[in-house]
Amino acid sequence: MIYITRRENFNAAHKLYNPKWSEEQNNKVFGKCANPNWHGHNYILYVTVKGKVNLETGYSVNLKELSAIIRERITDKLDHKNLNLDVPFLKELMPSTENVAIAIWKELKPFVNALECQLHCIKLHETENNYVEYFGEE
Amino acid sequence: MIYITRRENFNAAHKLYNPKWSEEQNNKVFGKCANPNWHGHNYILYVTVKGKVNLETGYSVNLKELSAIIRERITDKLDHKNLNLDVPFLKELMPSTENVAIAIWKELKPFVNALECQLHCIKLHETENNYVEYFGEE
Amino acid sequence: MIYITRRENFNAAHKLYNPKWSEEQNNKVFGKCANPNWHGHNYILYVTVKGKVNLETGYSVNLKELSAIIRERITDKLDHKNLNLDVPFLKELMPSTENVAIAIWKELKPFVNALECQLHCIKLHETENNYVEYFGEE
Amino acid sequence: MIYITRRENFNAAHKLYNPKWSEEQNNKVFGKCANPNWHGHNYILYVTVKGKVNLETGYSVNLKELSAIIRERITDKLDHKNLNLDVPFLKELMPSTENVAIAIWKELKPFVNALECQLHCIKLHETENNYVEYFGEE
Amino acid sequence: MIYITRRENFNAAHKLYNPKWSEEQNNKVFGKCANPNWHGHNYILYVTVKGKVNLETGYSVNLKELSAIIRERITDKLDHKNLNLDVPFLKELMPSTENVAIAIWKELKPFVNALECQLHCIKLHETENNYVEYFGEE
Amino acid sequence: MIYITRRENFNAAHKLYNPKWSEEQNNKVFGKCANPNWHGHNYILYVTVKGKVNLETGYSVNLKELSAIIRERITDKLDHKNLNLDVPFLKELMPSTENVAIAIWKELKPFVNALECQLHCIKLHETENNYVEYFGEE
Repeated sequence: MIYITRRENFNAAHKLYNPKWSEEQNNKVFGKCANPNWHGHNYILYVTVKGKVNLETGYSVNLKELSAIIRERITDKLDHKNLNLDVPFLKELMPSTENVAIAIWKELKPFVNALECQLHCIKLHETENNYVEYFGEE
Repeated sequence: MIYITRRENFNAAHKLYNPKWSEEQNNKVFGKCANPNWHGHNYILYVTVKGKVNLETGYSVNLKELSAIIRERITDKLDHKNLNLDVPFLKELMPSTENVAIAIWKELKPFVNALECQLHCIKLHETENNYVEYFGEE
Repeated sequence: MIYITRRENFNAAHKLYNPKWSEEQNNKVFGKCANPNWHGHNYILYVTVKGKVNLETGYSVNLKELSAIIRERITDKLDHKNLNLDVPFLKELMPSTENVAIAIWKELKPFVNALECQLHCIKLHETENNYVEYFGEE
Repeated sequence: MIYITRRENFNAAHKLYNPKWSEEQNNKVFGKCANPNWHGHNYILYVTVKGKVNLETGYSVNLKELSAIIRERITDKLDHKNLNLDVPFLKELMPSTENVAIAIWKELKPFVNALECQLHCIKLHETENNYVEYFGEE
Repeated sequence: MIYITRRENFNAAHKLYNPKWSEEQNNKVFGKCANPNWHGHNYILYVTVKGKVNLETGYSVNLKELSAIIRERITDKLDHKNLNLDVPFLKELMPSTENVAIAIWKELKPFVNALECQLHCIKLHETENNYVEYFGEE
Repeated sequence: MIYITRRENFNAAHKLYNPKWSEEQNNKVFGKCANPNWHGHNYILYVTVKGKVNLETGYSVNLKELSAIIRERITDKLDHKNLNLDVPFLKELMPSTENVAIAIWKELKPFVNALECQLHCIKLHETENNYVEYFGEE
């Protein structure tokens, strides 16, 4: 059993703003992340899958296929987009790093399973100082 | 004569879109950078100044002072902002990496001169694959 | 349940020297790390906490608050200090990377608990080639 | 109980090619990695061991000793070599990142055990976008 | 006048071996780089061009076009190749980092000129510890 | 004519303190860098030399030789040392990044000249946010 990780990235705009709250409350909790005109990040996404090594190929998963799936299902839909407005699978979500990582997990899981390996971790860097990891735990 | 560089950063939204052009023309030239709902980046800014070493301090410039000036004059005005909408010194400019770097040079130059050293280079990374350098050349 | 990590850093001096041993024994075990006049490092600290995502904010923890706690309780006390001489919570300890990481865990744990999440890991880089991770295991 | 990691590296050539398959099949599965004249990588190897902290030294393991073992047993045998042709402990193996990591684990384990700590993880980066982790799981 | 840089990369095998010399002489000068079965690297290529900023676009050069040219003319021909055997524009050359950088300059120059900017620098990293820069100086 | 750069590093302690000044004045200018018990850094040193490419070797300089000279003359004398107390060629100098870089230039120049190339630049990183470059300019 081995773990293999593919790095991909996307550059996107977002803001953190709870419309049920006053502007004062939003600024207190979200600070400059609540700027109404948006801000953005170079997100770095690490997708880790686990599986057994195939004796014929030496591969646990073919990274070309894994990369193609991540791009088709995730990063092509997030890159150069607005995470609050443009992405069907993020609709109705506060686009915090936590929520984006969990949404990516849910979106990607069926396609990874089809590769005969298991999705193990979604790691998402918002900046070089902040990242989250989601392992599918409830 | 020695060159000293301070790294700072800001996270911002922008889009590249020329309102005098058709949407087709914008998409042809700017591609996904023209997304109307914006996208964004973690920009990394390197400010290089040149000067003589002070015998009493061993400093060519006091980096605490240089950093404070860069933050007050530049990155506090750009961080978590929309480069098309929110920044007085970028008004009327296409916020390409080139134009943002040149605008930072113009904005910063008088304050660096007041430190008894010379502004040498503004280097601005938009992504890990793209950066510009401006040396004040016409 | 999601894991979120904040990176902070501090620059400090230290030496590894056991006063109960001969100089020869110290040099054999600690090599150049035993230099009596000290040496130093740019330490990089990663603090990982785990928690549930708050539905109102999308946050598992507010990183501004976590960062403020790490700075107040840890890095402000370590930055530009001598780890053998200047830090109350390291007193009587050999300041190896292992011991510093464990001491940071103990110091930080009550303050992280107060944020309604759990401290998961202290990861401390001494150089780009060496780092330790502590998960609170006895 | 603490985890400590040492980074080492090696630069090597390899190709991925299954001699039992047609050239067409090799190209379909391995793509440009099947180039008959080889290609190569700057591999980065992270070896993580776990152990208890020694009260006299503050060390869980002496990293000088761990580094010497990794170099003698692993990286001196892989650096500036051809992974398909030159390395006794990789003979008969498809030198995928997965297989190289597992072979390093097997080769290194007895020597790490002799240091009174346990081998925890072999992490091997083939590029900045791809890496595997092996924890000794069957 | 502004300088803009695009990063691309390629993974390749090579060896440094002068067929006019004895094996002893080759080993003395090139050391392990002379391994007859090759070794390899993850090369990182930075291409810097200089030009004026276009008022309509804010671009000095369209990086999509520059990137496409670098890939078509250079990295597609080097990636997953053997630099001694597989690359027409490196034929008859010792594939040292210096010679590869100069050959890339010569190969790329006419295509960059066609973009109405000037090739300024080819910077080529062989490892994280070694790189060369070529500015077209005789 | 080509430029080639070798990266080396050293970990050292220092403080910035002018004994001719009051403690108040030292704290005002140097801030926490004046801590009497020292602090330290992981310094990264980039040495750039320029020269012509040798037709027999493809080298402008043999990096094994350049690296050996940098280690023997510079980093072996700085690594795990106190820059204020332990280093003959830094005696009587305020060990600011500027002064250390200039002293390295002076120390290294005759040995680089003996390699039939020219010393072009000493670049010294004190942290990931601060570095200086010295080109031998008066």
